[in-house]
Amino acid sequence: MASEITSREKDYAQWYNDLILKGGLADYSAVRGCMVIKPYGFSLWENIRDVLDRMFKETGHQNAYFPLFVPKSLFEAEEKNAEGFAKECAVVTHYRLKTDPNKKGALMVDPEARLEEELVVRPTSEAIIWNTYKGWIQSYRDLPILVNQWANVVRWEMRTRLFLRTAEFLWQEGHTAHATQEEAVEETRKMLDVYAEFAEQYMALPVIKGVKSESERFAGALDTYCIEALMQDGKALQAGTSHFLGQNFAKAFDVKFLNKENKQEYVWATSWGVSTRLIGALVMAHSDDDGLVLPPRIAPLQVVIIPIYKGEEQKSVISEKVAEIVKSLKAKKISVKYDDSDHARPGWKFNEYEMKGVPVRIAIGARDMENNVVELARRDTKQKQSVSMDGLPEYIEQLLEEIQDNIFQRAKNYQQEHITEVNTWDEFVQLLETKGGFLSAHWDGTAETEALIKEKTKATIRCIPLDRKNEPGQCILTGKPSEGRVLFAQAY
Amino acid sequence: MASEITSREKDYAQWYNDLILKGGLADYSAVRGCMVIKPYGFSLWENIRDVLDRMFKETGHQNAYFPLFVPKSLFEAEEKNAEGFAKECAVVTHYRLKTDPNKKGALMVDPEARLEEELVVRPTSEAIIWNTYKGWIQSYRDLPILVNQWANVVRWEMRTRLFLRTAEFLWQEGHTAHATQEEAVEETRKMLDVYAEFAEQYMALPVIKGVKSESERFAGALDTYCIEALMQDGKALQAGTSHFLGQNFAKAFDVKFLNKENKQEYVWATSWGVSTRLIGALVMAHSDDDGLVLPPRIAPLQVVIIPIYKGEEQKSVISEKVAEIVKSLKAKKISVKYDDSDHARPGWKFNEYEMKGVPVRIAIGARDMENNVVELARRDTKQKQSVSMDGLPEYIEQLLEEIQDNIFQRAKNYQQEHITEVNTWDEFVQLLETKGGFLSAHWDGTAETEALIKEKTKATIRCIPLDRKNEPGQCILTGKPSEGRVLFAQAY
Repeated sequence: MASEITSREKDYAQWYNDLILKGGLADYSAVRGCMVIKPYGFSLWENIRDVLDRMFKETGHQNAYFPLFVPKSLFEAEEKNAEGFAKECAVVTHYRLKTDPNKKGALMVDPEARLEEELVVRPTSEAIIWNTYKGWIQSYRDLPILVNQWANVVRWEMRTRLFLRTAEFLWQEGHTAHATQEEAVEETRKMLDVYAEFAEQYMALPVIKGVKSESERFAGALDTYCIEALMQDGKALQAGTSHFLGQNFAKAFDVKFLNKENKQEYVWATSWGVSTRLIGALVMAHSDDDGLVLPPRIAPLQVVIIPIYKGEEQKSVISEKVAEIVKSLKAKKISVKYDDSDHARPGWKFNEYEMKGVPVRIAIGARDMENNVVELARRDTKQKQSVSMDGLPEYIEQLLEEIQDNIFQRAKNYQQEHITEVNTWDEFVQLLETKGGFLSAHWDGTAETEALIKEKTKATIRCIPLDRKNEPGQCILTGKPSEGRVLFAQAY
Repeated sequence: MASEITSREKDYAQWYNDLILKGGLADYSAVRGCMVIKPYGFSLWENIRDVLDRMFKETGHQNAYFPLFVPKSLFEAEEKNAEGFAKECAVVTHYRLKTDPNKKGALMVDPEARLEEELVVRPTSEAIIWNTYKGWIQSYRDLPILVNQWANVVRWEMRTRLFLRTAEFLWQEGHTAHATQEEAVEETRKMLDVYAEFAEQYMALPVIKGVKSESERFAGALDTYCIEALMQDGKALQAGTSHFLGQNFAKAFDVKFLNKENKQEYVWATSWGVSTRLIGALVMAHSDDDGLVLPPRIAPLQVVIIPIYKGEEQKSVISEKVAEIVKSLKAKKISVKYDDSDHARPGWKFNEYEMKGVPVRIAIGARDMENNVVELARRDTKQKQSVSMDGLPEYIEQLLEEIQDNIFQRAKNYQQEHITEVNTWDEFVQLLETKGGFLSAHWDGTAETEALIKEKTKATIRCIPLDRKNEPGQCILTGKPSEGRVLFAQAY
């Protein structure tokens, strides 16, 4: 089983696809660029969603639901946003099919059922939401509106990859409305912090918080903040974004409020989102050539128990003991599965659960029973040890935390080893080819230079880190003055 | 505030709309037939979803996610299903917009970006799912597949009503695959029981379990089981359906498995779903002319506390006491809000939370503080009483259960009073006009008679009750022989 996975060294992209497909996370579908999220993958998404949802609610947000479709006239109202997404819009033009007279059993679009106005399948929901907020906001008393939506969106991408870039994907999009610029900026930053905390504490994914250059900004935003993660191939991946939208959407949809001084003002906006892309990040950051490595705090299954037996009698003695263990683990809210199926041998099961990235594997055989021990294997380090059954739940509880920390620390070390200060163009080009990772370099602040660097090296500015030093220098390409270093990388 | 609601007697349909809009559950949107689910309404849906999701998981199901789009060629594969939904399909034909050369700032569908094959926005997912299952099922070991999906679907209805019938709605759709007919039928019935239990235990909504006549069956099913509820205007509402699909989809998508005898067989299927329509049922079954009445077990907010004070000093003394009460209620997992806002007077707040259907309202004034009591009002009966602060959490915990029971019992009484055995056509017609409700009557079993009755009276066969007596008789319209009574009603 394990041998079926292409190694990272041999073909990183194929390794990734192997993990997604063979790990049971997702499957290709009959629809171009769309995937099926399989139960194991969806369970991972449910865990991600549940933690984030709790964090959103703890920071005062409520969920709501807005229509899937955006009438074209609303879609085009905020010009930059419309321009940014126009090229990747799925468009509904008809509302009925009819029997195809020329082909038995077939249907055709009914030309008489053409919509008066075309409907765009939402690529993002600012337009439909701000058109709605117009009806909800009259005075400062109606503000802030702190709303989030869990939804599917569609962006017709030409090149798609499972989880990382699919035509349809699942995400959450927060859309907030505020009385002041200050409050909106604060919200934007707060949600960036929520994302960073989630990525590091739950996904064990170290991230760099920063702000995007103008070219990389969300279409329609005044500022796009982001968290950037690093994958094992040295490429960066944008894991979440939080946008300060200024009054752009309020102006496009004429959303004003009466302030405390009884004057009409435009409302200030933010939006922020993370998507099923996070699962791609998770897979690429931690996994190895034997399969997925999942952080215990969001793993669908934390512990698997496999019996090793000869004959039904041994099996039943083991199963009885395991029932106790399962109960004691569940009492500690540890998710556990006892795989006593007869379809496969233990060795096959070992490989299977390694592939699926289950953090802890327990094997119990007849001799273990005699010695009152189990064999315990960690997925992250692949270390095995014999552990007493006494105090096992406490031991495992502790071990899961240790695994969580270890996975994070490993990724953190990798990240830190892959942030390199670069001061010459030659070094820049060479490091991109050899080492990869983030290159911290000076840039003259112009979109032209940024575009030229991208053209020459495929590297983009991932972000201007929020904690960057105030360090004047000279642009890596043009030699012109720079206010401080920014992070370049090739990216997903 | 309360006076703004149209009374049921005056205009039932308007009363319903008033409750939805003014109760803050939903709002109209800019998209024809689509609504915005507002935070309070969405919170209700979250509670419904969370309980059902737990029940699905307890019965062995897992969630997954399948594409929003169904390629036309897949959509038409199961002929009856395709025929049933063809007339209400939103169809994506293009994947790009471009600048409109004739209209500044406007976009137009790019005629060069026409899809080779049109994509139907899923009205239901059997086609895309069974096309996927084909790749997942080889042998009996791969069965059963017990999968559920929470998703949005689109059915282009001509006449829409908030929650009851919207072009886009949220639902869950279970899609299971089985090795035997027996097992599939068992699954179909099991999920019907889950729905009935949920409706009665959580939504306080008494339902009748039954099976649909052939004309009312889900397109592509061999049998459609349903739960039918009764609204306060005497109309019935189908609250959930569970379909035995036989091998129809397996045959349409060529999904076979190798059985234990090493022979190829087609797979057996079920599907089952409930939707945001349930919220419409909830509203219409329990509410009154002052607003919503929500069953405590799924109410977004169970208790609201309103201070009655003069001056900041009184308020702060009350608030201190309330903080204790809030804490003690939360410890019992009772959701509670302290509304101490200065924007509105207590009377306005009373009306507002009555409108929103919050089961228990607590008012505390200075004199209450002195007497160590609170004023407690039940939403369902509108009874008020003075209750000691000692043991208040226990009292409220108990009261919430009492309210839940009372709401259910009230609806159950109404339902039982509105199931009438009818033996003549005149009586049938007259009762439909005067009393409404379910009419239990004999029917000759033909689709023609069923259609004729519908044409004459707008009444349809809601179901053949699962517990119906074996009682031969004569059809209410034609006088032809009948095997037993069925339930007729006008319906939503």
